[in-house]
Amino acid sequence: MKSPRIVIVGAGFGGLQAAQSLANSGADIVLIDRHNYHTFIPLLYQIATSQLEPEYIAYPIRTILRRFSAKRHTRKPKVRFCMAEVQRVDFSAQIVETNRSAIAYDFLVLATGCQTQFLGVSGASEHAFALKTLEEAITLRNQILSCLERASQESNPLRREQLLTFIIVGGGPTGVEMAGALVEMLQSKLRQDYPSLNLEQVRLILVQSGDRLLANLPKKLGVYTYKRLRQLGVKIYLETKVSQVTQGSVHLENHEVIPAATVIWTAGLEANPPETSEELSSAKKGKLLVHPTLQLLEQPNVYAIGDLAYVEQKGKPLTGVAPEALQEGVAVARNIQRQLQGKSPKPFKYFNKGRLAIIGCYSGVGKIGGWAFTGFLAWLMWLGVHLVYLPGYRNRLLVLLTWLYTYLMGDRAVRLIISGKNVKAQNYQALPQDKLDFFQESQSK
Amino acid sequence: MKSPRIVIVGAGFGGLQAAQSLANSGADIVLIDRHNYHTFIPLLYQIATSQLEPEYIAYPIRTILRRFSAKRHTRKPKVRFCMAEVQRVDFSAQIVETNRSAIAYDFLVLATGCQTQFLGVSGASEHAFALKTLEEAITLRNQILSCLERASQESNPLRREQLLTFIIVGGGPTGVEMAGALVEMLQSKLRQDYPSLNLEQVRLILVQSGDRLLANLPKKLGVYTYKRLRQLGVKIYLETKVSQVTQGSVHLENHEVIPAATVIWTAGLEANPPETSEELSSAKKGKLLVHPTLQLLEQPNVYAIGDLAYVEQKGKPLTGVAPEALQEGVAVARNIQRQLQGKSPKPFKYFNKGRLAIIGCYSGVGKIGGWAFTGFLAWLMWLGVHLVYLPGYRNRLLVLLTWLYTYLMGDRAVRLIISGKNVKAQNYQALPQDKLDFFQESQSK
Repeated sequence: MKSPRIVIVGAGFGGLQAAQSLANSGADIVLIDRHNYHTFIPLLYQIATSQLEPEYIAYPIRTILRRFSAKRHTRKPKVRFCMAEVQRVDFSAQIVETNRSAIAYDFLVLATGCQTQFLGVSGASEHAFALKTLEEAITLRNQILSCLERASQESNPLRREQLLTFIIVGGGPTGVEMAGALVEMLQSKLRQDYPSLNLEQVRLILVQSGDRLLANLPKKLGVYTYKRLRQLGVKIYLETKVSQVTQGSVHLENHEVIPAATVIWTAGLEANPPETSEELSSAKKGKLLVHPTLQLLEQPNVYAIGDLAYVEQKGKPLTGVAPEALQEGVAVARNIQRQLQGKSPKPFKYFNKGRLAIIGCYSGVGKIGGWAFTGFLAWLMWLGVHLVYLPGYRNRLLVLLTWLYTYLMGDRAVRLIISGKNVKAQNYQALPQDKLDFFQESQSK
Repeated sequence: MKSPRIVIVGAGFGGLQAAQSLANSGADIVLIDRHNYHTFIPLLYQIATSQLEPEYIAYPIRTILRRFSAKRHTRKPKVRFCMAEVQRVDFSAQIVETNRSAIAYDFLVLATGCQTQFLGVSGASEHAFALKTLEEAITLRNQILSCLERASQESNPLRREQLLTFIIVGGGPTGVEMAGALVEMLQSKLRQDYPSLNLEQVRLILVQSGDRLLANLPKKLGVYTYKRLRQLGVKIYLETKVSQVTQGSVHLENHEVIPAATVIWTAGLEANPPETSEELSSAKKGKLLVHPTLQLLEQPNVYAIGDLAYVEQKGKPLTGVAPEALQEGVAVARNIQRQLQGKSPKPFKYFNKGRLAIIGCYSGVGKIGGWAFTGFLAWLMWLGVHLVYLPGYRNRLLVLLTWLYTYLMGDRAVRLIISGKNVKAQNYQALPQDKLDFFQESQSK
């Protein structure tokens, strides 16, 4: 009898975990991803702020798959990898169509995650910088460094201010981490390298639509984060929405216009499902509805996990963090194996180990069980936990060494403006003369 | 009295060395480069073959400039850096015009190096991969890895062969290094990662127009290199010229057509002078003619060094290696200081410490004084010398650790297909059906 084929689409936290949990099941496992590497998304902001090298948090999938084969001497990976873009899933034919070939499946795990959503804000998708993929993080790094270079050559003080204004839209973990990391970056030895630049002129502005930061964590932690970021010099606008992003400025709904060469968008995410032969039921933000077993409502042999799936626990939706995807990956592997044995799949139960968020400059916030805590301990725990979850000993060692270097020497090592795929800064709209006059007047008032 | 301003264009080996040698001269030094980093060009081929990370051989210029200031407590770099593209030099006004601003000079050092020249071969500039800049090296890495991924999914054996054929045009040091490094790469643990791929099918072809490899070194070393590369499985065509490169094949002047998804061009270089207000006299390959003092024939206060200048020593032109540029950087600094003191500049004398080239797989060739040697010792010396010349202790340590990892574990760590700025592989022209038939026929004959 031919062994059944299980196809997994997406090599993020959920997809990779499912592949690992299924590796020794005897089934024929095919893992598909459009990249040849797994991205450790929680550390992307450290790429954008010149702290880590892209290679440290992106791991070649084929190297990861080596570890899944228990018998080292066979040298044959138990999971096959296929680098391709999925174009369509045909449920009736049970085929995944990619840009390279069509792959038949008996069971399918969809783990294609989510992407940045610009919430319909005019100009945001063209002019704002997202921070959800490795390439976006590199592009943002290039942008930030380019702004410093250009500002150091800009004689007009208002244009210089525009180049040194960084607006972060969104007060969730990514927005908070990015704000803190930018402060850290600009307080590092970098200052000495721009003698013609007064880095006191840098303006970091965080715009949050809700009434507090880190809305998914206890209120106390959001308040602490707010105070800490303010201390660090970040200007925070709460209950404020962005109405428009242009090439060089942000318009707020209260009609304020802030000239800024860099707008970082961390405000919205939406699920990123593949095209399918039949329409699937979805919840808000395009997340696919699934049974408690993580099976699609419509297809008993197709599962959705991670940020792609709308999963509730105790009446509340899960929030889209890595541990959820990892645990779902394990659950889905177990359920498929149960189905192969003729048993019925079991509902997924999430075990919440806690939540951590890092603010930067030696502070963070965390919640474990009923215990909410802040400060240096949370900061250290955040670093430790992320180090442990990073794939590969080599990467762990390199990241640890780099962090030690960063914090002991107060320096940033990775500062190249390279492979500037679409560096928007090159084309930012500098304030024209009449606007310069206008702002100059309004400032002197 | 205002201190004189010396402007240096280009932060390669020559330009950086000139800046360092002038740092404590009391003059106002401005260093201009279009990148914010210095590229250690001799190791580019290790980027292209997934051995080193781009950040290890590219060093932020502002970080290098820190070291040039002797008094650490002043914290003010003695050399100012300006990231900009030079658009024109106006000799009569003594101004360097960049895309950002215009910079006046009293003395000017041109060190803008050279770029790949495709020798008028049709299709080469569009379809062949150059290896002269960091971005080109990353693009080539992406291409090589993409070809392996695509070949592992290609069912047609001829198209697979096309994807696995790598043609290197040029038998100088870069071509030889690239050929050897590709062999090393494909013999590493990578093999295990492509179980569906028989890497014996990989074809490496080196095409050289002359009658031997490494024409700038003693004949004996070229012969050794030829034999060694043949042993390693590289097919070498001597006295063969490429007449055309298409998207997916190479045409030779002997009318042979080789289907190949990847053509690596290391055959030609030409000087890369900035546009100037007056035409400058130049030698072949666009190199600027200079006095023995390295001053331009036309401008006594403008110097040209490195690959940009045509410099003869003992009746023979210099060959364009890093030590030449470094020594010229020192000489030019000394000559400008002599001019500032009202003395006349002195002729440049090159001290040849020797030459080394690496073949890969534990072999290299070298010539020191009259002694020509080959094998493991030359290989080890090459690694050692390049490690010593690499800027920065951090980079030296990381490169050393990576080399140890590479050679002890037989693995390649850096294998990401990222920021695929213009990955030509995506669009390579796969053999159409009629050609497939043709090649199938001709092979079966």
